[in-house]
Amino acid sequence: MSKTKTEILSLLMEGNYLSGAKLAEMLGVSRTAVWKNIQRLKEDGYSIEAVTNKGYRLVEASGRINESLLAGTVQESQLFDDLIYKNTIDSTQNHAFRILDRYDGNIVIVSGHQTSGRGRFKREWLSPAATGLYMSLVLRPNVTNQNMIVFNLFLSLAVSDAIREATGLESGIKWPNDIFINDKKVCGFLTEVISADNIVETIVCGIGININPSVETDALGTATSITDELDNEFDVNRFISVLFRKIEYYYDKFLHESFSEIKEDWLDQAIIFNRELTITTVREKLRGKALDITDEGYLIILDGDHNIHKVISADIEI
Amino acid sequence: MSKTKTEILSLLMEGNYLSGAKLAEMLGVSRTAVWKNIQRLKEDGYSIEAVTNKGYRLVEASGRINESLLAGTVQESQLFDDLIYKNTIDSTQNHAFRILDRYDGNIVIVSGHQTSGRGRFKREWLSPAATGLYMSLVLRPNVTNQNMIVFNLFLSLAVSDAIREATGLESGIKWPNDIFINDKKVCGFLTEVISADNIVETIVCGIGININPSVETDALGTATSITDELDNEFDVNRFISVLFRKIEYYYDKFLHESFSEIKEDWLDQAIIFNRELTITTVREKLRGKALDITDEGYLIILDGDHNIHKVISADIEI
Repeated sequence: MSKTKTEILSLLMEGNYLSGAKLAEMLGVSRTAVWKNIQRLKEDGYSIEAVTNKGYRLVEASGRINESLLAGTVQESQLFDDLIYKNTIDSTQNHAFRILDRYDGNIVIVSGHQTSGRGRFKREWLSPAATGLYMSLVLRPNVTNQNMIVFNLFLSLAVSDAIREATGLESGIKWPNDIFINDKKVCGFLTEVISADNIVETIVCGIGININPSVETDALGTATSITDELDNEFDVNRFISVLFRKIEYYYDKFLHESFSEIKEDWLDQAIIFNRELTITTVREKLRGKALDITDEGYLIILDGDHNIHKVISADIEI
Repeated sequence: MSKTKTEILSLLMEGNYLSGAKLAEMLGVSRTAVWKNIQRLKEDGYSIEAVTNKGYRLVEASGRINESLLAGTVQESQLFDDLIYKNTIDSTQNHAFRILDRYDGNIVIVSGHQTSGRGRFKREWLSPAATGLYMSLVLRPNVTNQNMIVFNLFLSLAVSDAIREATGLESGIKWPNDIFINDKKVCGFLTEVISADNIVETIVCGIGININPSVETDALGTATSITDELDNEFDVNRFISVLFRKIEYYYDKFLHESFSEIKEDWLDQAIIFNRELTITTVREKLRGKALDITDEGYLIILDGDHNIHKVISADIEI
């Protein structure tokens, strides 16, 4: 994004009307330059209204990811060294694997639209334009594969905490890697790891969060979005800033503490207990209730015949 | 490579003198086209001599990887769906990660020259032009991370068996992933895996084999090459064909049998027993002797103080 375009966007993000003359003066550019950049922002998909004697105003700006604000959030972060932002991409997860060798540190890839997003088990993840936050975190943990089992537990708490803090909504965690609101899915993530000799060199964690309603995800019946659940205005850019802070906090805990340290908080937000579940593992499909989760991240299931199962990887229907 | 160029190369690979007129007649092209393609082959680095009244002859053809023959070998294979061949590349391993999302099946990436090859622990792997075989296998096993521990054991046997069958040399296996001849390293490999939920979706296994002597690897003192060790002529293309057959054989065994099935053969070729070793793990450095290897792939070490260590990941000096 050009400097002038970014600056105009930032000024309009404040929500007031600003005339072309005022913008030109503030940025030290010509009025023609202002007009041209306003056109470019419109081409980028921003809805900008022009009212006679008042000036330009950004409509519904808060529901849309702002690249400049996002770059600022990543720059503030102690965890991430680089941000890659794409308006549209096939999949942030696939892109992460394509560019891995160009970076040593932790990076984050964000997009407002994926043409072929994917979830667990190669399932399609619907990612319509301007309705969601789709990102892949690339992290270099240097832990064992065994330690990785609890990564999803720390990350779910990060996402759920961010939703709770930024919206006040009572989000819940569905083991192993979904976040729900009112029994509908609002976020899913997919953690892929690259390891050699049993040591994890790289985590590539894709996160998809439904922000605004969309025809496609509404049609699923099982999904919702944050603004669907909120009566208030929702500021996605403030949410992103909270989310990065929570991810940073819980990733540090993941590296230096055991799951038992956060287990109580996780259990408080878990939505899989005290209800009948259908659990599909690679070996079997069973119905039962979740009794507990171990410090190593295994789920303990009691089936209808009173048999105990210790599950490490499964798909759960609530 | 253009069709005519490949055909000329294949004909010259047979080792005889062939005149421009004869080549033109055999391929149904003009003598000028033959001449132009001979020039292109020379530019590609093939050494072709032209002798009056005899014709063209490929010099030292057998020591050089032939792309057409390689393509034929991969096509014959039941295991691999696609071959990617690059004369020069930064690293076949890095390239594998960059193109992963474009392929579903098993693929192999081969190069005769790497500008930044890498081994375990991000060490540099010297890959001078026309002296080695550098390849990355991309495989989709659908096994657990736990099962992966023995993958290197199956693969080392595949490489060592191929060297033994194609050259008659007595190669040996240095746990976990090097092949030696006369106590010098001739091959190393690096197995990286991509897994989600503890299930390995993709193996990216880089293999580097020193074929011809090179100033760089000779300078190491600890490395050798196959032709260094051989008194006979060495046909790299026949070797590649044997290697692919062995990889296919042992990969199938890896998927369907346990390590115990091949343990005796592996122990026969292992060079770490009955000698003093220096073992460096993430936690410690110790001196001792290898006593045994378990069916799960752990090495059992007895140190000088008669303590037993069970090692899963380490660097060993013999």
